[in-house]
Amino acid sequence: RTVIVNLFSCFLQGILERLGAGEIVIGDGGFVFALEKRGYVKAGPWTPEATVEHPEAVRQLHQEFLRAGSSVLQTFTFYASEDKLENRGNYVAEKISVSKTHSPWAAEKPALICTCYLSQIIILFPKYFFPSLTPFSQAVLVAVWAVEVLKESGKPVAATMCIGPEGDMHGVPPGQCAVQLVKAGASIVGVNCHFDLDTALETVKLMKEGLQAAKLKAHLMSQPLAFHTPDCGKQGFIDLPEFPFGLEPRIVTRWDVQKYARKAYDLGIRYIGGCCGFEPYHIRAIAEELAPERGFLPEASEKHGSWGSSLSMHTKPWVRARARKEYWENLKPASGRPYCPSMSKPDGWGVTKGARELMQQKEATSEQQLKELFQKQKF
Amino acid sequence: RTVIVNLFSCFLQGILERLGAGEIVIGDGGFVFALEKRGYVKAGPWTPEATVEHPEAVRQLHQEFLRAGSSVLQTFTFYASEDKLENRGNYVAEKISVSKTHSPWAAEKPALICTCYLSQIIILFPKYFFPSLTPFSQAVLVAVWAVEVLKESGKPVAATMCIGPEGDMHGVPPGQCAVQLVKAGASIVGVNCHFDLDTALETVKLMKEGLQAAKLKAHLMSQPLAFHTPDCGKQGFIDLPEFPFGLEPRIVTRWDVQKYARKAYDLGIRYIGGCCGFEPYHIRAIAEELAPERGFLPEASEKHGSWGSSLSMHTKPWVRARARKEYWENLKPASGRPYCPSMSKPDGWGVTKGARELMQQKEATSEQQLKELFQKQKF
Amino acid sequence: RTVIVNLFSCFLQGILERLGAGEIVIGDGGFVFALEKRGYVKAGPWTPEATVEHPEAVRQLHQEFLRAGSSVLQTFTFYASEDKLENRGNYVAEKISVSKTHSPWAAEKPALICTCYLSQIIILFPKYFFPSLTPFSQAVLVAVWAVEVLKESGKPVAATMCIGPEGDMHGVPPGQCAVQLVKAGASIVGVNCHFDLDTALETVKLMKEGLQAAKLKAHLMSQPLAFHTPDCGKQGFIDLPEFPFGLEPRIVTRWDVQKYARKAYDLGIRYIGGCCGFEPYHIRAIAEELAPERGFLPEASEKHGSWGSSLSMHTKPWVRARARKEYWENLKPASGRPYCPSMSKPDGWGVTKGARELMQQKEATSEQQLKELFQKQKF
Amino acid sequence: RTVIVNLFSCFLQGILERLGAGEIVIGDGGFVFALEKRGYVKAGPWTPEATVEHPEAVRQLHQEFLRAGSSVLQTFTFYASEDKLENRGNYVAEKISVSKTHSPWAAEKPALICTCYLSQIIILFPKYFFPSLTPFSQAVLVAVWAVEVLKESGKPVAATMCIGPEGDMHGVPPGQCAVQLVKAGASIVGVNCHFDLDTALETVKLMKEGLQAAKLKAHLMSQPLAFHTPDCGKQGFIDLPEFPFGLEPRIVTRWDVQKYARKAYDLGIRYIGGCCGFEPYHIRAIAEELAPERGFLPEASEKHGSWGSSLSMHTKPWVRARARKEYWENLKPASGRPYCPSMSKPDGWGVTKGARELMQQKEATSEQQLKELFQKQKF
Repeated sequence: RTVIVNLFSCFLQGILERLGAGEIVIGDGGFVFALEKRGYVKAGPWTPEATVEHPEAVRQLHQEFLRAGSSVLQTFTFYASEDKLENRGNYVAEKISVSKTHSPWAAEKPALICTCYLSQIIILFPKYFFPSLTPFSQAVLVAVWAVEVLKESGKPVAATMCIGPEGDMHGVPPGQCAVQLVKAGASIVGVNCHFDLDTALETVKLMKEGLQAAKLKAHLMSQPLAFHTPDCGKQGFIDLPEFPFGLEPRIVTRWDVQKYARKAYDLGIRYIGGCCGFEPYHIRAIAEELAPERGFLPEASEKHGSWGSSLSMHTKPWVRARARKEYWENLKPASGRPYCPSMSKPDGWGVTKGARELMQQKEATSEQQLKELFQKQKF
Repeated sequence: RTVIVNLFSCFLQGILERLGAGEIVIGDGGFVFALEKRGYVKAGPWTPEATVEHPEAVRQLHQEFLRAGSSVLQTFTFYASEDKLENRGNYVAEKISVSKTHSPWAAEKPALICTCYLSQIIILFPKYFFPSLTPFSQAVLVAVWAVEVLKESGKPVAATMCIGPEGDMHGVPPGQCAVQLVKAGASIVGVNCHFDLDTALETVKLMKEGLQAAKLKAHLMSQPLAFHTPDCGKQGFIDLPEFPFGLEPRIVTRWDVQKYARKAYDLGIRYIGGCCGFEPYHIRAIAEELAPERGFLPEASEKHGSWGSSLSMHTKPWVRARARKEYWENLKPASGRPYCPSMSKPDGWGVTKGARELMQQKEATSEQQLKELFQKQKF
Repeated sequence: RTVIVNLFSCFLQGILERLGAGEIVIGDGGFVFALEKRGYVKAGPWTPEATVEHPEAVRQLHQEFLRAGSSVLQTFTFYASEDKLENRGNYVAEKISVSKTHSPWAAEKPALICTCYLSQIIILFPKYFFPSLTPFSQAVLVAVWAVEVLKESGKPVAATMCIGPEGDMHGVPPGQCAVQLVKAGASIVGVNCHFDLDTALETVKLMKEGLQAAKLKAHLMSQPLAFHTPDCGKQGFIDLPEFPFGLEPRIVTRWDVQKYARKAYDLGIRYIGGCCGFEPYHIRAIAEELAPERGFLPEASEKHGSWGSSLSMHTKPWVRARARKEYWENLKPASGRPYCPSMSKPDGWGVTKGARELMQQKEATSEQQLKELFQKQKF
Repeated sequence: RTVIVNLFSCFLQGILERLGAGEIVIGDGGFVFALEKRGYVKAGPWTPEATVEHPEAVRQLHQEFLRAGSSVLQTFTFYASEDKLENRGNYVAEKISVSKTHSPWAAEKPALICTCYLSQIIILFPKYFFPSLTPFSQAVLVAVWAVEVLKESGKPVAATMCIGPEGDMHGVPPGQCAVQLVKAGASIVGVNCHFDLDTALETVKLMKEGLQAAKLKAHLMSQPLAFHTPDCGKQGFIDLPEFPFGLEPRIVTRWDVQKYARKAYDLGIRYIGGCCGFEPYHIRAIAEELAPERGFLPEASEKHGSWGSSLSMHTKPWVRARARKEYWENLKPASGRPYCPSMSKPDGWGVTKGARELMQQKEATSEQQLKELFQKQKF
């Protein structure tokens, strides 16, 4: 009866000991987005059947994140649901199981491997939230229920929410969300997905302040998007007109990520990773920025000079001049798109207050019903 | 005595028959850039030792391009040089050989495989062009020599140059470059790298017009960058301040690539691929746009709905509204970077006419010496 | 002992009767900025000596605002101070006096003329706020004292503050500022200068809500900048790097102003004008947008077709196609500056929290001293 | 039988002697645009009836340009046509005459006054170019006829064309246009309107090179737009979607104008002015930049510190830091419009090559007819 809420909370072996000892835990990146660009995941459904259809492709990406410095590798089970697995029969279940237990690097590598199990909670997404598909982690009340269930396993629970500084879908501010999650039993709280680097840090800062005011303690975690989204509304990047096939100009550079890693560290966050859009080189940027604190560089840094130093041998003198930190730190990269704007107006909830209120109302009325369904699940 | 000039010209089995029969040949994407982001190639040197150090990573990328629709897969030998191979000893040579001859998909897949051999011409790059490292393909006179040598093999030669509409480093316009290459024996001419989608097409158009004026015939080829670079100067994207670590906001969308593929086809280009920045999903976009002409979709389209159709089941109505061609065709994607400009001033040659003239002069004087060295090579 | 706080509060004849009867009062525009561009005011000092040096130029601008629809014309006395007037001798005082009482249009025009008198309060600016030069109207406590003094005149007092949604320099929120001003005796409250159209409306909205919560009543007034400044900090546009000589790309269009006028009206604001950057055609845009409510167009509309209708006779069909409301309403005007960003980081207080706190502390300690000095003034 | 082609060519008393002696002649700015914003000219017709309806407003603007440093003041007769004048009767003719001969500053000021007379050539605009309304000065063949007619007056003729580097409507390049105009008798040649600062200089440079190649001599003149229009097509800013009511974000700063004035001077241009969008402070920027060469500052500089020096007394240290040339010279001013692009696609001819060709063809066929009509005019 073990349970995993992928991209939301997971059991991590020894993680509390590590964090307790002051260690920095580096997360991994965005599997669905990376594999979509490689041709193995379909945008829209975003389901993880690649795990069984093209395990070598999933394994390669895991390998790259590991090499880039990830301390944790999440099982690629986003949107995996019981009915989908049933549809695909034993073959799928077996394959996923195999891929989980026989991961070839598990024994060899000094990284912390996330032991994830097939989730039943995930089934809730399509079943009971349809058609609104409210992301689970956007309503703290549901997140709290999940933490309570996960807690029964006896393992530490990390709970991140897809919220920004405005708080959850019902207006519960981040500080209060954090307090509720910790009171429910979470040892690590934070945010993932939906918002960009700076917004994620702003939200975790509010969580931290909420916990301090309530005299509660927890480790902090941050896994934002690798897209600049200063223009998104309360519901995050899904409402931006560019989602999901026009986000390219928003992709963050490795330098943006280095700045993020430093700010996250300074804020007291010790589980620092990324979500949608984070490629291996983005994760490496976290590991490189925090190498002084951690005492080592990731493997993939053998193919990367710090702050562009690998350009110091370039034959053009003006390219050589880019081999320094100040250059990349201060660069304001051009989009090459003079016919495009800098920001967009979000669609839907982001702009239509009426729509949002209607949606909130609908959910509020179904809260009791939802809880009953939730509790009936066989974990 | 077989020779390959990677990213420049290559022998392709049966390619003339295919092109002659009106078939569209889809190229592959940018290995060094893709593998740099995956952690296997170092920006700056850009050397392909991953082929022997992490063959599974290279093979995975080859696999992805193949799956995305590439008809041709180039050996990953960019900047490979004899001395570098010697340094690494037999191990390397053997491995590359193995990887070449035992490519697992060679027998199974209906795609055209590029039979590439270790290059000696490539050795010229670091040896004789240092310290100017003028890309080979930026001076038509050297390109012509290369074609002449390659021609001796008896196989068809494809020759692309890294030039824009202004022509080569000595001011030879694209039309004249094309004429010289075809007269030297090239069967396919075009451009690769250094410039963006529209600029590449503009240049190939000038090549086509040059050939028409000279009453010469050749197949046309285009492999541009996957970055928007309307602001780059004559020397291309290397001179842009964002090269190579801040190019993210310039990355093209799949829709940009679809438009490019259509325009390229309409212009009469039949070898259509990409260069630095092209990821598998960009190649898939070429294959999807030209599926009506080719009669089939690439494998990776099983994970992609045409023009965003996979969003038609999304729970948010405003996201569902994006499941149509008109939406993505007309989207002007925002950068999310309001503090950054749209365009940059290029460094170096792009702006300093004096520097460019100096460089051209230096090369002009060494032309005779260069030719002698070139001819002394043991092919 | 008559007093005027220019750009801050003024006595208006019959204005309460007009507003009470539901009339819309249209303000005027930005004298110092407009006259600076015409060559009569020096940026930096921003003093109004043009009134006596080039009265015909000042009169011409007054005439233009009147013709554009202004119901009120403020005397051009910004930064006029007793010592400056003394420096210039009787000549100046006499001239200003003359210009004030003998304004040629006073008798002829049906507009409401602002009867302004030489100010002594203004003297406080350079004398007691130097060197911080905290704009008077940025601290509600001083604004309240001014209202109390002005109130003694027995005339209605309009009090606007140079604040945004974050409130005054000491953190007093807009709602509370409005309450304090009304309790001190102001009949009209609102904002002027320092922030853009949308920000001004957002601030007045907060003032309105504050008054409603306190069950107080007052007329609302708005006179924002004619510059887009979404990027400015708490201290407004002065801290933006473009102030005051690079603001051109931020200038609002007439259509921006029409939208502002409509939103202001819908919000219940009935004194609607502009501040720095507002030119006569911007004021005309207010008058045209609210012509249905007011029942008449301004004089200057004889030279302006509603929503571009004057283009309907253009010879180029694509220019004729611009002769309609939808076109101009939805236009996203390009800057023509691809090498420039969309937003800037403000200097000084806007970004340096430490500096702001230091400044606030310095002021807090001098509050008592300030009040004593204030009360010693001979009004 | 005196003739004036306003915004195109004019008789200037003593101008050749001045230019011949190496003097810099500073032009004036854009009357129709400036007066439109002041409420006296209607966009669309752009007719100059303000000269008789509101002579004080026109006189005020003339006064401002004079004060800003203009050596020449053009009569405000743009689009004045015989039939329009007839419509308005003797009143108008008399008024214009009065305004012309009794200009109050004519006798007092050391500036060169342009003696302009009512034009008959202008009548051609609406009469014979309707409905294409091809600006007269966009076809060099018509410009040549005009010069020939003007030449008969015995006075020096200045001829500017509304063209960019691509040349006139029929593809005649700028160099050749200049040669034809000088051969026809023009003493001064150059460009005005339709294109921005840099484009104007680029075009005049081509004219200069054309004259040099033909061993002809003429003085050079430049009067560009005060709008940044890097994105406009061959037909100039009229085709931009922002024309004429959304051009604000494109307005040039005084520093842009100073750079332009310096570049124009360095290029050998000695008649340096502006066209649509140029306000008095823009003209002052020319006069200030060239003050070292001319030996004096314009009157209006009493209200302007060189390169922002008037900010040196500001109370905020970060504003004081802006009181230097390097600051304003390097500023990349933000638009404050993150939802807007940097560039637009021009409508009409700018993008539709077919439309342009059709238009050119139509004109080509009517050339003979046009010339006959032209010659029948009573000059």
